[in-house]
Amino acid sequence: MPVMKIGDRWYRTIWPSDDGLAVEVIDQTLLPHVFEVRRLENLEAVAEAIRSMRVRGAPLIGATAAYGVALGLRDDPSDDGLDEAVEALAATRPTASNLAWALREMVAAVGKLPASERADTAWAMAARICDDDVELCRRLGEYGLTLLEDLAEHIGSRPLNVLTHCNAGWLATVDWGTALAPVYMAHDAGMEIHVWVDETRPRNQGAALTAFELAAHGVPHTLIADNAGGHLMQHGKVDLCLVGTDRTTARGDVANKIGTYLKALAAHDNGVPFYVALPSPTIDWEVGDGIAEIPIEERPPEELTLVHGRTSDGMLTAVEIAPPGCPAGNFAFDVTPARLITGLVTERGIGSASIEGLLALFPERRDVGKNST
Amino acid sequence: MPVMKIGDRWYRTIWPSDDGLAVEVIDQTLLPHVFEVRRLENLEAVAEAIRSMRVRGAPLIGATAAYGVALGLRDDPSDDGLDEAVEALAATRPTASNLAWALREMVAAVGKLPASERADTAWAMAARICDDDVELCRRLGEYGLTLLEDLAEHIGSRPLNVLTHCNAGWLATVDWGTALAPVYMAHDAGMEIHVWVDETRPRNQGAALTAFELAAHGVPHTLIADNAGGHLMQHGKVDLCLVGTDRTTARGDVANKIGTYLKALAAHDNGVPFYVALPSPTIDWEVGDGIAEIPIEERPPEELTLVHGRTSDGMLTAVEIAPPGCPAGNFAFDVTPARLITGLVTERGIGSASIEGLLALFPERRDVGKNST
Repeated sequence: MPVMKIGDRWYRTIWPSDDGLAVEVIDQTLLPHVFEVRRLENLEAVAEAIRSMRVRGAPLIGATAAYGVALGLRDDPSDDGLDEAVEALAATRPTASNLAWALREMVAAVGKLPASERADTAWAMAARICDDDVELCRRLGEYGLTLLEDLAEHIGSRPLNVLTHCNAGWLATVDWGTALAPVYMAHDAGMEIHVWVDETRPRNQGAALTAFELAAHGVPHTLIADNAGGHLMQHGKVDLCLVGTDRTTARGDVANKIGTYLKALAAHDNGVPFYVALPSPTIDWEVGDGIAEIPIEERPPEELTLVHGRTSDGMLTAVEIAPPGCPAGNFAFDVTPARLITGLVTERGIGSASIEGLLALFPERRDVGKNST
Repeated sequence: MPVMKIGDRWYRTIWPSDDGLAVEVIDQTLLPHVFEVRRLENLEAVAEAIRSMRVRGAPLIGATAAYGVALGLRDDPSDDGLDEAVEALAATRPTASNLAWALREMVAAVGKLPASERADTAWAMAARICDDDVELCRRLGEYGLTLLEDLAEHIGSRPLNVLTHCNAGWLATVDWGTALAPVYMAHDAGMEIHVWVDETRPRNQGAALTAFELAAHGVPHTLIADNAGGHLMQHGKVDLCLVGTDRTTARGDVANKIGTYLKALAAHDNGVPFYVALPSPTIDWEVGDGIAEIPIEERPPEELTLVHGRTSDGMLTAVEIAPPGCPAGNFAFDVTPARLITGLVTERGIGSASIEGLLALFPERRDVGKNST
């Protein structure tokens, strides 16, 4: 049973269409105002959906790209067709690790098959990547739940206050979410939990997606400006920061939505634990120094100067908040150095943000991990 | 000659009307889209203008409140009238130090006069507070300019990159600004300078006011999300952070627009100098520990969930960015502890953010300052 019920139906964030000819996703650019399913029938539609952030969140980007390869191979199952699909999808978003990981998985699964077998195998492989993502998130959620339970025991009878940035919930993955998986499990288990939701400028994924998810699941929450977390931590209003990540290096540096680093600094300055939740495909074992090596996507300045929302008469529109022609810089991610991270919550358990911590959980990556640090 | 020319006219941010019956201000809630002068004819209109942030910025709040007292005394020059004016204005905004300071100055100037003399004296005193503010800002600007010149010498031939938060410019004061005064002077002196403008959620004063001011003055600038400063500092793109303050304690703790603390943490973590510019009326000599003692204003949640701006067809409207009924917390300020501040730029020079640093500049405050730490 998926985690999220919208209206009277349970949903994953991506699924094959009933006719088997397409993959269907929730158009996240319309949330929280409109819940609309979008049918993606070919490689180009998938690439557009990732690039324009109709689907986003590192694990969901990976899963969607897998279906993109499968749809591309239906149209051209040749080696060139495979190469072109991989290239087109790899170019959509530069920062998330799961995208490159999913494309590698797809190539490994079908690259040596005869062209005639590729499309069907790829379709099945994409479905498996989705199922695996659900299971990884469920497992990391259970480890995260133990963390929340431990903290709740120490604070007594008031609700546990978690601060999160951007959306690392159900909508960022196929199901469950990363940072929010333990939150849903804690709420379902009857724990009193309250989430401070960073609105997450410039695209407001906190306001639009995390607040939407938490409301749908009935988890108490309060939307705040991205600027507010430090003040709340100074005044003891945050027990734990819990965020997702788009790419985690072998050393434990964490790329995540722009602004995450500022919250990690505030957590460190105030003795608030700062945890990052991730399924292992988010780990980039080839990279050591996240600040020096991870490419940070720059997106259109209009994402900052034009704010999308709903007017009082229900119209969806955008309003300009700056003077006409105001120059703007739109950096999509930042890197939080491992030294500011209390721990990484993975499907194998919770480890320190370090090569030693990661290799203790994933000893089979010893060779590649050691090269990156 | 005032600093800012709008169209073909030079402006201060507040001035007595030509007929002498009112005070006029620029309605800052309409910027950057509409430049509209608003006439304030009585105490209630002044209180409303401060409360609804038609005028804002600690020094301008103080100057406006002074005129509010003067207008109140025209209607009721009795002791009760004076008390009521002071009480009504003091309640408009709780955090800025300059408001309480200006009200004390006004009471000191007129409290012992016969009722018949109060209104005229108060009017003249309000004008003097405005003139003094201009002179304080000009002087602190010149000290700040030496700081910018020193930094520019060290970085070589590229533009000096300054990051600022909220609006501490001309619009926050009567003229010149605090943090932006040295920036205008540097630009006017031919220095290559570029400003990273934090948009400053939730009211977007960076996007609406600072970007407007810098564009009007021709200073190169780039609007960024409040989330972006840490990333820029990690990559050497910020030479200096320079902000204003609503209240600075005797110990050098600095209350300023929410999010300032996060930028100070990032500056500290990356070895970027972090300076705060303030005229001395912003110093609250009675308070030592800013985090424990300064009241932080909480404003309506709609300031966060409804974003005001201009549609593509020129209509001014607001759009909701969160799910309907989403709970939101709107904390207007935070406190940056003195340990994160490289120096305080005042009208007497630049000092360390400490009781010793402040008393070296303002030795006449030794008695009261010592009691607060």
